[in-house]
Amino acid sequence: MRTTPAISLLTLCALPGTAAAGDPLPSWGEGATKKAIVDFVERVTGEGGAAFVPPAERIATFDNDGCLWAEQPMYFQAIYIFDRIRALAPVHPEWKRQEPFASVLRGDTKGALAGGERALLEMAMATHADITADEFDQHVRKWLATARHPETGRPYQAMVYQPMLELLAYLRANGFKTFIVSGGGVDFIRTFAEEVYGIPPEQVIGSSIKAKYQLVDGTPRIVKVPQLNFVDDKSGKPVGIHQHIGRRPIFAAGNSDGDFEMLEWTTTGPGARFGLLVHHTDAGREWAYDRDSHIGRLGRGLDEAPKRGWTVVDMENDWKVIYPPARGPEE
Amino acid sequence: MRTTPAISLLTLCALPGTAAAGDPLPSWGEGATKKAIVDFVERVTGEGGAAFVPPAERIATFDNDGCLWAEQPMYFQAIYIFDRIRALAPVHPEWKRQEPFASVLRGDTKGALAGGERALLEMAMATHADITADEFDQHVRKWLATARHPETGRPYQAMVYQPMLELLAYLRANGFKTFIVSGGGVDFIRTFAEEVYGIPPEQVIGSSIKAKYQLVDGTPRIVKVPQLNFVDDKSGKPVGIHQHIGRRPIFAAGNSDGDFEMLEWTTTGPGARFGLLVHHTDAGREWAYDRDSHIGRLGRGLDEAPKRGWTVVDMENDWKVIYPPARGPEE
Repeated sequence: MRTTPAISLLTLCALPGTAAAGDPLPSWGEGATKKAIVDFVERVTGEGGAAFVPPAERIATFDNDGCLWAEQPMYFQAIYIFDRIRALAPVHPEWKRQEPFASVLRGDTKGALAGGERALLEMAMATHADITADEFDQHVRKWLATARHPETGRPYQAMVYQPMLELLAYLRANGFKTFIVSGGGVDFIRTFAEEVYGIPPEQVIGSSIKAKYQLVDGTPRIVKVPQLNFVDDKSGKPVGIHQHIGRRPIFAAGNSDGDFEMLEWTTTGPGARFGLLVHHTDAGREWAYDRDSHIGRLGRGLDEAPKRGWTVVDMENDWKVIYPPARGPEE
Repeated sequence: MRTTPAISLLTLCALPGTAAAGDPLPSWGEGATKKAIVDFVERVTGEGGAAFVPPAERIATFDNDGCLWAEQPMYFQAIYIFDRIRALAPVHPEWKRQEPFASVLRGDTKGALAGGERALLEMAMATHADITADEFDQHVRKWLATARHPETGRPYQAMVYQPMLELLAYLRANGFKTFIVSGGGVDFIRTFAEEVYGIPPEQVIGSSIKAKYQLVDGTPRIVKVPQLNFVDDKSGKPVGIHQHIGRRPIFAAGNSDGDFEMLEWTTTGPGARFGLLVHHTDAGREWAYDRDSHIGRLGRGLDEAPKRGWTVVDMENDWKVIYPPARGPEE
């Protein structure tokens, strides 16, 4: 893929994403995908129509990694974990001789991930737990302010998909309540979801570790505990939706087979329903991957989308732009 | 306490609760309590003022039992559990010889509760689990439609506090997002919270059992699993708030020491904060209880309210009415 050049503020007004009058989805090419979305929204919002859904029930759920922002060459939260391990290394001299930390400190990402989920969980706990929720929030915000993507050189928050930002805003303008339902860590996503996606913390559902309430010298705090609480992936997604939202969405968007059950749960309910799968087909402007990817694998979803009536976004052909324009040379 | 008489629809317009022009809290007596609430709301919503809070951060959390609706002679959800055990008895002949079920079937509430929390949990699992979330929802709705309070004869949804309904609406009219944070079961409360309190399911936090996603003949469903997931009481309340909302409330209301940590967490943050405790002082119109009650015990809260700056509602003197007027002789 090639790097998006920094774009001067002067060109902003002419870019898609600042909306041609009357078109709420200017970054979406005219075609069947955009038409399917607009048709659905018009059907469920058309008062008196057979498919009308009251505003309170217009629940829309979105996966995050690979659906709202990029996920290559690896989940951005994993990059945060590696960066955080390096930052913490001076106070953990034992990590030099202890895997998977030793591999991270040698810059050997592959070695660090060789231990699979168990190793990743160990690293997540070492960087996400035994600190207060406020401290974690501050660490992530500070990281996001300075970290840059290894290939594009852009801030991670700039690697969100402009067409999806428009879709979120379009749904909200039509009375939908938009939620994130991610396999990623809920506290991680909450640090930027409101500013970047317009989604408040209480509408973010994700994987989590346990937490406890603690008084230190009479001052209360929430401490993140190194114990898994909930894995919001695959069949965990409908469960997370049930526990957190308490109603069934009528619109769900994802990009991998980890989203399959969320789309299945959403689209098998009564009345009008919409399932959207973002297919990463754009090797030039983003990345192209699906069935054989080590991350964001999409196979079953592609196979079953036609018979389930799910709409598949072909990124290369359906999206006029991928990312929002840069805010400036330094962003 | 005495029973509220059914009130004809003709008298409705003259009652408090249908709002004197300009007063958003007509059921609250003029006094220090009402003044403290209004002053707080005006301070945090006054643009340019030192205590101004942006709308997105105006999070208000409310306990349910004894705070938004009554909780005597026992939690209404416990009454549901007993009624449900009686309804299920024909398919559980073994319950006749098995405690705590045998006591319930003999009408011996005290005996049923003699086993303490363990017995209550066993009865909760037997009536809340191994059914789909949809089935549970239907059972509770059907029960609420016909069940009547043993002392007032009113539907349980009519035993909500009119002054608190006004407070919820007043806060929302001032840009607050209102949440329930209850020790009660989240799925139970969600069946009526939207209609009765104007609080949508996604803004209800409560205790919960686990759930799983299951396909039966290709049809997906959420099944409630007989395993405790989260106890949203005492120090669990700030934790539940953290996991579900992801931000610290600026307003919290409760009525028992189970709400102590929620009020503590809310009112020790920076900026303007409000803690409210409903004190059940009205033996005539409701019930009078606090330190020695078997339910909704309030001791530490009363002791510490003055030094913590929490506002204590004296139900007898601060509230002009307790419940909304009856909808009709049959409600």
